[in-house]
Amino acid sequence: MRAVVITKPGGPEVLELREVPDPTPGKGELLVRVEASALNRADLLQRRGMYPAPPGAPKDIPGLELAGTVVACGEGVTRFVPGDEVMGVVGGGACADLAIIHEREAIRRPKGMPATVAAAIPEAFMTAFDAVVLQGGLASGQWLAVDAVASGVGTAAIQIARAIGARSVGSTRTEHKLERAFSLGLDVGVHGTTADLAKRAREVSGAGVHVGLALVGGQPLAELVGALRPRGTVVLVGLMAGAKAELNLVTVLQKRLHIIGTVLRSRPLEEKIAVARAFEDRVAPLFEGEAPSLRPVVDHVFPLEAVADAHAALEDNANVGKIVLFHG
Amino acid sequence: MRAVVITKPGGPEVLELREVPDPTPGKGELLVRVEASALNRADLLQRRGMYPAPPGAPKDIPGLELAGTVVACGEGVTRFVPGDEVMGVVGGGACADLAIIHEREAIRRPKGMPATVAAAIPEAFMTAFDAVVLQGGLASGQWLAVDAVASGVGTAAIQIARAIGARSVGSTRTEHKLERAFSLGLDVGVHGTTADLAKRAREVSGAGVHVGLALVGGQPLAELVGALRPRGTVVLVGLMAGAKAELNLVTVLQKRLHIIGTVLRSRPLEEKIAVARAFEDRVAPLFEGEAPSLRPVVDHVFPLEAVADAHAALEDNANVGKIVLFHG
Repeated sequence: MRAVVITKPGGPEVLELREVPDPTPGKGELLVRVEASALNRADLLQRRGMYPAPPGAPKDIPGLELAGTVVACGEGVTRFVPGDEVMGVVGGGACADLAIIHEREAIRRPKGMPATVAAAIPEAFMTAFDAVVLQGGLASGQWLAVDAVASGVGTAAIQIARAIGARSVGSTRTEHKLERAFSLGLDVGVHGTTADLAKRAREVSGAGVHVGLALVGGQPLAELVGALRPRGTVVLVGLMAGAKAELNLVTVLQKRLHIIGTVLRSRPLEEKIAVARAFEDRVAPLFEGEAPSLRPVVDHVFPLEAVADAHAALEDNANVGKIVLFHG
Repeated sequence: MRAVVITKPGGPEVLELREVPDPTPGKGELLVRVEASALNRADLLQRRGMYPAPPGAPKDIPGLELAGTVVACGEGVTRFVPGDEVMGVVGGGACADLAIIHEREAIRRPKGMPATVAAAIPEAFMTAFDAVVLQGGLASGQWLAVDAVASGVGTAAIQIARAIGARSVGSTRTEHKLERAFSLGLDVGVHGTTADLAKRAREVSGAGVHVGLALVGGQPLAELVGALRPRGTVVLVGLMAGAKAELNLVTVLQKRLHIIGTVLRSRPLEEKIAVARAFEDRVAPLFEGEAPSLRPVVDHVFPLEAVADAHAALEDNANVGKIVLFHG
């Protein structure tokens, strides 16, 4: 099969599309023909040698999410048969013609949705759902605050908030991205810093927001803590703005706040399965029907051969939503 | 009745024992003759004008916990009758001959225990139980790390850990306090900083501790985060070491840590009741019987008339366990 291989740590130019041996599905696993995959910041970090793949995942083939069709089933598989259309998050190796996914991590693709659209779903929507709803506890009538609201996870989070009856306030440093976010259901937009977001969030929500989604880390995390109401939760999902934050502990203690760090990729199998099952049950149906309440947000589709260009585009940070690779 | 009154913000000398009107129990409330009360750092802060009493509590009478006897019941009280021996946490006003407590916040005193001993129970053990077990989720077989292990809450936390089948590692800057902590069930003691504690905690626990109890706040909170295993929780309970902490967000994200701020005093009634009920059910019985697994830790008992000396003693920070006032 063809696979994108990280030949050495470096820029987009170290990515090579090569012939490599086909993978073989083990017990409970599916072999999937990948029709489309999508990029994540973790792919950029892995390419630069800063984020090794977890145990069990291919070491040098990036790609954390895919949409495709089952072509073979390992021993004991019961949920799928060859020909089934699936999507899902994997520990790595999605950037290839064939990939392995555990049958209980695989999710049925929304009916009639092209693979290049479905590939924009798994990582962004599963991360957002897990962070905001399962861990943050967001519920109807409540407020969500999101920094980097135009990112893949940000655009997913505001849609999920809207779909479950919650409201959202989000910020971006790039003004034109706000328009796109409004069209996806963002209630209140802030063109500015996370400190500006926190101020506006307190104004619009009354006592502060119930859940803050910290997509960039760094000192903005501490600013986002200032947007919370008593007993609110900030969930930390990314570190693009840095690895340090100086917290105001008086606020954390007196408002009885929760700060939670989270990452999907390094979780043990049973936890990944639990998230995938909850997602299939509670989120996947919202992509279906005549007026679906959730829409995958695709910024651009590149052919697999142009994977280096796709990486460069994500590094430019000009995207709203996901950058997808079409495997053909 | 007599009550200790904060006449103006200041040192221990601003405390005066005065005659004030008796309080009257409202619906669901008990009027309690306070036989003993105990001091907390919140009393010192309130005396200095830095921690106003919550709504509904007396503004200028300190005292957050008491042991005494019910002398009158408000309308609708069903759990107690006059003559019952009770203890409990109140929003303020315990430093007086009579105090009001909601009947569902009051806890039956362990049989045969003098009031001057029972007064050392409520705030320390309820705070420790709520922080370590209810919020931190500590369970049998797990490890707890505690800074300021010789404090009232610290000595309660290590006893609770031992009583439920968990193990503890704790630190103090004052070497002789460690001996007392060992006698109360501390498994591993560290004479040193919170950074030393975190290092030792990782060594003895293998992957790190499940729960960290941050009793002093400040940068030590960030050090204590370094003691956690993946998915571990630090619960922040005090701020004596300061209001700022610089967190390493890489650790928080990759280990999927939880940081929780908590305080009992400002909670709404229903939450205080929930803690008191869980405490009466799960902790209070452990103070009873021939070989009780929990023991109140009383450092010194002062007569109520010497309340200023008692405040000065707590400010000296030389105590192991609680400083109690005997009301006579």
